[in-house]
This record gives sequence, structure tokens and C-alpha cells, in this order.
Amino acid sequence: VNKKIVTLLTDFGLTDSYVAEMKAVILSICPNVTIIDISHVIAEYNIRMGAYLLARSVEYFPLGTIHVAVVDPGVGGPRKPILVETNKGFLVGPDNGLLMLAAEKQGIKHVYKIENKKYMLPKISETFHGRDIFAPTAAYLALGIPPQEFGKEVFDYVKPSFSEPKIQKNKIFGEIIHIDHFGNLVTNIKPELLYEKKVEYGSHLKIALGKRKPVKTVFLRTYSEAPQGKILVMVGSGDFIEISANLANAAKLLNAKIGMKIILIL
Amino acid sequence: VNKKIVTLLTDFGLTDSYVAEMKAVILSICPNVTIIDISHVIAEYNIRMGAYLLARSVEYFPLGTIHVAVVDPGVGGPRKPILVETNKGFLVGPDNGLLMLAAEKQGIKHVYKIENKKYMLPKISETFHGRDIFAPTAAYLALGIPPQEFGKEVFDYVKPSFSEPKIQKNKIFGEIIHIDHFGNLVTNIKPELLYEKKVEYGSHLKIALGKRKPVKTVFLRTYSEAPQGKILVMVGSGDFIEISANLANAAKLLNAKIGMKIILIL
Amino acid sequence: VNKKIVTLLTDFGLTDSYVAEMKAVILSICPNVTIIDISHVIAEYNIRMGAYLLARSVEYFPLGTIHVAVVDPGVGGPRKPILVETNKGFLVGPDNGLLMLAAEKQGIKHVYKIENKKYMLPKISETFHGRDIFAPTAAYLALGIPPQEFGKEVFDYVKPSFSEPKIQKNKIFGEIIHIDHFGNLVTNIKPELLYEKKVEYGSHLKIALGKRKPVKTVFLRTYSEAPQGKILVMVGSGDFIEISANLANAAKLLNAKIGMKIILIL
Repeated sequence: VNKKIVTLLTDFGLTDSYVAEMKAVILSICPNVTIIDISHVIAEYNIRMGAYLLARSVEYFPLGTIHVAVVDPGVGGPRKPILVETNKGFLVGPDNGLLMLAAEKQGIKHVYKIENKKYMLPKISETFHGRDIFAPTAAYLALGIPPQEFGKEVFDYVKPSFSEPKIQKNKIFGEIIHIDHFGNLVTNIKPELLYEKKVEYGSHLKIALGKRKPVKTVFLRTYSEAPQGKILVMVGSGDFIEISANLANAAKLLNAKIGMKIILIL
Repeated sequence: VNKKIVTLLTDFGLTDSYVAEMKAVILSICPNVTIIDISHVIAEYNIRMGAYLLARSVEYFPLGTIHVAVVDPGVGGPRKPILVETNKGFLVGPDNGLLMLAAEKQGIKHVYKIENKKYMLPKISETFHGRDIFAPTAAYLALGIPPQEFGKEVFDYVKPSFSEPKIQKNKIFGEIIHIDHFGNLVTNIKPELLYEKKVEYGSHLKIALGKRKPVKTVFLRTYSEAPQGKILVMVGSGDFIEISANLANAAKLLNAKIGMKIILIL
Repeated sequence: VNKKIVTLLTDFGLTDSYVAEMKAVILSICPNVTIIDISHVIAEYNIRMGAYLLARSVEYFPLGTIHVAVVDPGVGGPRKPILVETNKGFLVGPDNGLLMLAAEKQGIKHVYKIENKKYMLPKISETFHGRDIFAPTAAYLALGIPPQEFGKEVFDYVKPSFSEPKIQKNKIFGEIIHIDHFGNLVTNIKPELLYEKKVEYGSHLKIALGKRKPVKTVFLRTYSEAPQGKILVMVGSGDFIEISANLANAAKLLNAKIGMKIILIL
């Protein structure tokens, strides 16, 4: 049988030993596991960014993968630690919506509250449940402990109310949910919304960021079809509409930020 | 038998191929090993920060783990490469104090000078002993070569003289030894010092940074017990007193730097 | 038999899930593989920097290692995806010169165009061939699929025309090809050029950056032989001449940038 994979996604950054301590705990409990980092540079406390990156990456991992995600502004407070059993594997983390985009994509089977101290570190800090609760949970799942052993099934978990795009006549109102390393603006708009409106590669359209004046642009297949430095609209690799620039940083060119409203005028 | 774990902690940063070259050397000598990064973003030449992060993380790794740490401003000069055998595993790196907080925590059995060229790369550069000496040492240890094969036992290794907190009446004088990704100020003050003075969760106290005016604050169990953006004092996940802020960056709020003196006024 | 090693070098940065998606694809196809990151912080679209770091690190990996490198400004355009079989292993990436310094160092046996859709993801995005083409190629190579199965042999691949140093009397004209985390300036000048001119450790020489006035310096064995904060010339760990400073950042001291011309005046 193949080694189980455990993935980690956090807002812990790369300077501290926090991520290494989680890995140490996992390997101490279940040595025969492959640990893969998804990202540790989620913007601090930015649950939506974490949820987006988790949801887009889970589909590429093998069946049975255990995903641990910790963007946890409420650590030590009343929020529950949870464990989601999906049709494809497991998701472990705080009950604040972080896991739910990925969980819905995979198909939710059961959600459990993590409360059995047998599967936690003996000493639980108030500030680092990633190491003391979530890492051991992942490791014991990898060992084959059934999910219902960790605590009782719950139904009152947080369903995230992330904004959804709206259509009015020839306008699609969306939001920038992520800006990647290259400055590409990832929106919450699925390409199907454009296809329904008969937008095709080569179609001209306008984009408006926040309350700014609309800018003319084109819907293209890939970066290099636009002149160097020019803004284009395309389908990103996460299957959302992205605003990009050929060999340039669209976020800088447009002075865009995560969370900004965006209107596509077709 | 389980695969040996080798950990790496350096100030090499994440841009260059230095860390990858160390991993390549280790895997070339001992393919059956799991390599875990603790941190490669130790502030350049900052031995104390490296020593703190190494010491706090080693306790979570399994027995027998081999830790390689390279924060090495004296590379190529007269400082010795050393190998420490502890009660829990091995520590490998330069003889400048970097390894010694972790070594003392684990219990030192023997310290050896690394001098047997049989266990180094054939060509040793003047500037990259991480790849040419320390990585092969770790790999040969993982293969089972006994530590005394690498060189003679030494007793004149560097014992770091990191500052210790002092108590005068109702004041504890300490130092900021680390600032984490979230802006939490990690001090060198153990929580026991507060407990001895009958400080309890909810107790009010003042903190003074450097020569600045004292600021009123509270000793709390976790971030979310403080109002948003407010400074609090708590026990950090590394079991030292930390100065934090709820959903905010204490280092920015207080304009704090690593190495600053701090006074807790109880 | 030992597990195959797959290495990854990209300009994708560390914030996004792009690298994790590549790893997920590799592990889904070939679970029994060790994945090592060389660097994901190559300056965006900087093929030369990527080529330098790839070429210097490949020699430390075991025979048979499969290296995937993606610095790919032309993704989705007409540039070919290629696979290079060398005397030491395989290199996979875009046909833009990125792989060729490493390939020449290892000895090129054959170059193949990657075109067999059987060994790609079923859905190929226009912008992320790292995940959809190069990662599966590496995984199928690790499974033992012979390289000629991926596509036809090609001979018109891009040979990079990176600048070479020139010698005129007592001057060596070179270029800064990389600046590392510590601010060391890596030049394209091999130490042999200095040895041929009878430059020895301790020899005095001048360096001129761009069109600036020459600065006096010394050729030394290691950093610590120079006074603290002073510029020196030495042989770097990648076996090129580097301009460094003892316990200081030479790039900041000299206000140097990648791509600058440099003259060594012997």
C-alpha cells in the first residue's frame, strides 16, 4: 500500500519553527507518511484566501489524502476544532469556514468535532492548536483511526458566506479573491458565466475595479497573445476568470488589492 | 525500522540552491532518510535566534533524529565543525553556541570535532561547509557510522552566554530573543518566574521596552481574551513569556526589535 | 532499489499552491518518489538565474535524478515543452535555454519534444504547463517510461547565448549572473582565468562595476580573512568568482544588480 499523504496549509510564514513542529509531531505518531506543504504564506487571518488555495489544490491529490489547514484567528477561543470526512479524503482544522470550499468540492460525508484527548498532545497550548491538536489528528487518521473516534458528529459547523458573483444584463459583478505571485488577479467568477453570455476568445470587454473608470481589454486564451505589458482577461489555472498582463504584474498596473469589487462589462 | 529523520536549520534563505545542495548530498550518501526543514530564514548570522528555534523544535522530533544547523559567520576560519551526541539524538554544525541550547535541553553525552575527511565531500569549499562537511556528517550518522568515527572528543566547545532574566523586587528584567511571523515578541522569561510572583491569568502588569515609558497590560490565557488590537502578555507555545496583540502585530504596535531589553513590572 | 528523486525549480514563489499542485500530480502518478525543491524564488521570467542555480545544483544529486524546471514566460505560446536525456539523468521544462547549462554540464544524449498526450493531464490549461505537462512527464519518467515515448527527438532546441567573460591584457570583463541571499555577487568568471594570470590568494586587484570607478580589493580564500565589512574577491561555492564582504552585504555596499557588467583589473 502507498504511504498516506498529509498536506499542510497555514498562515504561519516561513521564518519560525511552527510548521516544522507540526511535521515533527506527525512523524512521531505516524512515521510512514509523506508531508506536502501547500502554502504557509496565506495572508494572516485571511480565511478566504486559505479556503481558495486549499479548494483548488485538493483535487490534484490522491484519494485518501489528509489535508490540515490552519488559518485560525480564534485559536484558544470557543471555535471548535473539526475533522471533515469527504468522498475523497479528510480535512482537519478550525471551524471557521476555512475547510468548507474544499469540503464541498469533494463532497461532505460527515463533520466531527475533535474532542478526544487521547488523540491530542498531552499538553495543549492556548495558541498553537496546529501542533497540539490538528497535527496529531492528521497523524492518527493516517494510522487508520476511524474519524468517529475523534469526537461526535456535528451539524452546526460554519458554512462560509463568501460572496458570489451577480449578473445584471451585460455586467458581471464579482470580487478579487486572490492575487498570485505574478500579480494575476483571481476573481470569484467562473468562466461558464462568460460562455453563457457568448463571450469567446478574442471578444472585447471592459473591466472596472472598485468605483474606478472601466478599462478596455480582451478575453484571450493565454498571456502571450496580448502585447507585452497589456492587460488581458483569461481563464486561470484554478478555473476562475483572472485579470492578467503579459510579462507584467496586473496587480501593480491596476493598483488592485484582495477583496476589491470588480465588474466585467461585456 | 523507521527512516531516520534529518532536520535542517540555516540562515541561507529560500532563493538560492544552497539548501537543495545539502539535501542532494545527504540523499546521495543515505537515500533512505526523511529530511525536514526547520527554518532557512534565520536572520543572517543571528546565532541566538537560530539557537532558540532549534531548541524549541527538537523536543517534538522522534528519538534518534539528526539535526543539522548552520548559522556560521566564521565559516572557513578557525572555528571547529562539531557533532554533539545527546540523550535524544545528534546535533551537527559549527562550534559557535548555535547547537548548545538544544543540546543542553536534550542532555549532552559527548561533543566531537568533525575532522575525518572520509566522511566529508572530496572537495571542501572555503565558504559552504553546510554542503561539504555538515550534510555528509548527518548522512553518515544516518547510515549508522558511530559518532566517535568522525573525530576526537572535545571539551573546549563554545558554551553560549545568552542573557538570562533577572528579578529585582516586583520587576523582571528580560530580553526579546525572537519576533515571530505574527509580530509576537518572544522573551527569555520563563512563565515560572511570573507564577512564583503570584501572577495569575487576569493579573494587571506593566511592560517597558528599552528605556521607554511603561505600558499597562494584562496577563491572559490567549489572544482572543484581549480586545482586538490590544497588547497582552501570555505564555507562548515555546513556553516563554510573549508580548502579543489580539489580531494585530505587537512588534509593529510597540516598534520592537530583536535584542531589546524588556522589563515586566508586576 | 532506491526511490527516484524529482527536483523542482520554478519562479512560482512560495505564496500560491502552484508548487503543491505539481507535487500532487507527481505523487498521484508515481507515489514512490522523493521530491526536492531547488528554488521557487527565481526572479520572475529570469531564465539565466534559473539556469545558473539548476546547473550548480544538479551535480550533487544521485544518478537518475529527474529535474523539472519551469521559468516559462512563453507558456501557452509556440515554445516547445522538452525533455533532455543526459549522461546523469533527465531534465524537463520549456525550450527556452533554461535547462541547457545543466544539460551541457551533465552531457546531452538526446532532446525530445514532449507531445504524447497519454503522459499529460487530461485537461491542459493554457497557463500552467508545470502542473499539466511537466509534472506528469517527470512522474512517468520516474515510473520507467522510456524518454522516446514522450515525443520525437529534436535538434533545433534553444541553445542559450549567455554572455561569456573576455580577457584583454590585465582585464577580465564579466557579468554578475546572480546575487545570493547574503549579497554575494556571483560572476560568470571561472577561477581558472585568474589562476592563468598568476593571481594568488593575497593578490591585490581592482573591480569596476558598470561604468563606475574601480575599487581596490584583495583575492582571498574566505570571508573572515577580510576585515569586517570589507569587500573581497573569492572563489564561490558554485566555482565562479564572487565579490563578497565579510559579515556584510556586498550587493548593498556596491549597489549592484543582476546583469551588471564587471571588470576585474589584475
